[in-house]
Amino acid sequence: MSPAEVEPHVFVILGATGNLTRRKLLPALYHLSSRGELRKKGVILGVARRNLNDQSFRKLARSMLESAGLSVDDAIYSPWCDSCLHYRSIGQGSPEDYKELATRLETLERQHSLPGNRVFDMALPPEAFPDAIVGLGEAGLNKSPGWTRVVVEKPFGQDLASAKELNQLVHKYFDESQVYRIDHFLGKETVQNLLVFRFANALFEPLWNRDHIESVEITVAESGGIEGRSDYYERTGASRDMVQNHLMQLLTLVAMEIPTSFEGDSIRNEKVKVLRQIAPIRRENVVFGQYARGKIGGKEVAGYREESGVLSDSETETFIAAKLEIANWRWKGVPFYLRTGKRMPERLTRIVIRFHCAPVSIFQPFESTCALEPNVLTVAIQPDEGFDLQFQVKSVGQPISLTTQRLHFRYSEAFGPLPDAYENLLVDVVTGDQGQFVRYDEVEGAWALCDPLLKEEITVYPYRGGTWGPPEAAKLFDGSENTWLDRRD
Amino acid sequence: MSPAEVEPHVFVILGATGNLTRRKLLPALYHLSSRGELRKKGVILGVARRNLNDQSFRKLARSMLESAGLSVDDAIYSPWCDSCLHYRSIGQGSPEDYKELATRLETLERQHSLPGNRVFDMALPPEAFPDAIVGLGEAGLNKSPGWTRVVVEKPFGQDLASAKELNQLVHKYFDESQVYRIDHFLGKETVQNLLVFRFANALFEPLWNRDHIESVEITVAESGGIEGRSDYYERTGASRDMVQNHLMQLLTLVAMEIPTSFEGDSIRNEKVKVLRQIAPIRRENVVFGQYARGKIGGKEVAGYREESGVLSDSETETFIAAKLEIANWRWKGVPFYLRTGKRMPERLTRIVIRFHCAPVSIFQPFESTCALEPNVLTVAIQPDEGFDLQFQVKSVGQPISLTTQRLHFRYSEAFGPLPDAYENLLVDVVTGDQGQFVRYDEVEGAWALCDPLLKEEITVYPYRGGTWGPPEAAKLFDGSENTWLDRRD
Repeated sequence: MSPAEVEPHVFVILGATGNLTRRKLLPALYHLSSRGELRKKGVILGVARRNLNDQSFRKLARSMLESAGLSVDDAIYSPWCDSCLHYRSIGQGSPEDYKELATRLETLERQHSLPGNRVFDMALPPEAFPDAIVGLGEAGLNKSPGWTRVVVEKPFGQDLASAKELNQLVHKYFDESQVYRIDHFLGKETVQNLLVFRFANALFEPLWNRDHIESVEITVAESGGIEGRSDYYERTGASRDMVQNHLMQLLTLVAMEIPTSFEGDSIRNEKVKVLRQIAPIRRENVVFGQYARGKIGGKEVAGYREESGVLSDSETETFIAAKLEIANWRWKGVPFYLRTGKRMPERLTRIVIRFHCAPVSIFQPFESTCALEPNVLTVAIQPDEGFDLQFQVKSVGQPISLTTQRLHFRYSEAFGPLPDAYENLLVDVVTGDQGQFVRYDEVEGAWALCDPLLKEEITVYPYRGGTWGPPEAAKLFDGSENTWLDRRD
Repeated sequence: MSPAEVEPHVFVILGATGNLTRRKLLPALYHLSSRGELRKKGVILGVARRNLNDQSFRKLARSMLESAGLSVDDAIYSPWCDSCLHYRSIGQGSPEDYKELATRLETLERQHSLPGNRVFDMALPPEAFPDAIVGLGEAGLNKSPGWTRVVVEKPFGQDLASAKELNQLVHKYFDESQVYRIDHFLGKETVQNLLVFRFANALFEPLWNRDHIESVEITVAESGGIEGRSDYYERTGASRDMVQNHLMQLLTLVAMEIPTSFEGDSIRNEKVKVLRQIAPIRRENVVFGQYARGKIGGKEVAGYREESGVLSDSETETFIAAKLEIANWRWKGVPFYLRTGKRMPERLTRIVIRFHCAPVSIFQPFESTCALEPNVLTVAIQPDEGFDLQFQVKSVGQPISLTTQRLHFRYSEAFGPLPDAYENLLVDVVTGDQGQFVRYDEVEGAWALCDPLLKEEITVYPYRGGTWGPPEAAKLFDGSENTWLDRRD
């Protein structure tokens, strides 16, 4: 990105002393600035309850960066922090406090000769979000002489009803074109590349349908547990934490039709169409699981019910597997297998496209089933981003015999280390590109699909930590020749 | 291959003291034996004019192996040569000489308790070949108590008429099922794998036609010159030396329909069909070239007319480029560009499949021409055997921009060093698999296509050694957006 495309702005972080700011926002802003992509264009205004001034916030910011594992370079940090970093307490968040925030913003903009472009990044816990929206809106901070954009973090609502309510509240003050709902998966290079892969390569589109694809499998596996966040997780579970957002996003990107252009609403229109064409998820096509004690990488790990803060009879799901069907001309009859869980053998996000087998093997023409392995395209999203295409080759020597090999591409081999997803997304925010953000109707469409999972009583099967979920998840493949692809490559 | 599938036999080399035996046959037989693939199954009988006995032939064979660059291991060589290697002079090749050869064969078979299976490998110059066929046939060596097979080296004829004559002569004594015409390209793993790639992978067949493929380009480039063989080359030229055999073989493998099975005649039936569907080559679609002085790898190289034994006004072509069209439902309208030459920048055999561009780029939907690079599949045959699939990916960072990358597979990375093509082919001969050998009607079909090139006066353009041929070759792409793909990767 050329820095010229970024217009001068103030980047306001609401929740500037919080965890998300420390882990994601500040590191991303620091990296972008130190690479020259935001510097001299953006001023940052931290906002939180704590009573800090610019100086003490700059100190805190530095310790936050360091605690996030960055090695802070003084030659870069000092000028950045002196020219960029500011702070304003929001106190108890009264209307008066927001008015004073507005005054501070105007002062800052005057001091830096800024035209009034503003980002409000809501790095807040979900329960603080509605009040902040109202606070901003009532103080007139929903508009400015330049543009005003609101960045909203997940989770967006707890179910369909609450998401709709939240959207109504946001829309009371902000136009949808101002709203940037983050799903950080969408900031990942490989996820963004999925659309390039599909629509810049004429090779794949003719194959990308029910005639040639046997099934699609999407796995988002974490090896970690709940990492002390029992409070959050007990209220959330895997459905809300992963399925409604990340898995549904990956699914829509795989399944969507060709958008009219590579522009925010064209892409999001197509994603919404997919969500509306997914058949209601049937109970028998869902398997819930909860991790029990186990071993990962040789280390004993506790079961979910043993985690501190979790009830000993908790029925919260830490694993979901589901089989979905998309009822449209492209996909009818192609199962989409989705799976996510904690305490799985490795951290792994991957989309697996299984093509149909050859109808007959000319190598054994009269076998009752084709003995050939199918072609499988794997889109590896983390940790090792790239593409693999599994295909059959002749083994060396005579007589002829076949073996499976892979055409291979890895991002890191071509480009070196990739930027964090947040960096991509923040650049999109300040340049006004909504394509990789979730529109209100996407959020609601995804909740509409997941709502039944939240409301119904579904058996939660235990699985050993360090396994790919409960054995019951395999039954989703009943009637198919396949099962979950468990090895990483 | 399991050694059990090889039946005990005598492998007769006619021309046992010659160049081909030294460079190819003996090394291949030695390697196969030392790997246990032929040992104890095959006895070798060298036949030539020279007056040698078993002992002196064994000594000669050893020095031939060493001069071919093999490191001969005594522990393997001595028992192999003592039990395997025999010699019989054919004298002046009179009927009497062939009768005595027959007697010697029977004796050998008695001594080694062999059932009478015989290979006659005609490692002879083309002018000696007809007499040898007659000699064998008249001595009754065209049949035996077991099987009898004749291996024929290229060139097979000098044009359509001579090839037909030769086929008639061969068929007077041998059934086509006994005849193994070698095109050593067909023994290469990658060439054999081309059929596996096409017919064991359901992914490619739906794309393998005029709807999805824009053009096919086949290059067989040599960096060497004529290496002192002016006598041979002046009579031959690139048309006879490369186009009629190797290039036509590669073309038929790319273009053929799905055979009914992976069996010799099923494959060859389909190849013949392709040859018959190639439209007669029009003169304006052919460019001839002849190398002039130049530089390869920093070294000055002489021009063709400066080579010893070449006339200073020789019009022999050392380069041919041609555009062919296959008039069938699969390929009509898809140009097949063929190119071969000596003294090109590198040794390189490669098939390039260019797919159509995406019809529109959603990244720039209103551009008049699609700005996207096409997908290109490269089948690398030598020196670095494997597959590459060129595709578009997103460059790292924002805003979106595209870059070309490659999905990559290399045989040597998966399997280590590959056996020489001759080893594969000799195994096929002794196991009776004709699939990788050229049938009489293939030979004639290929000559029928090339005959006009031999008879017409075609301008021969000079090209500098170390270049990809005369600039005039580019005109074959007139009216297309492409030109020859000159870089290796």
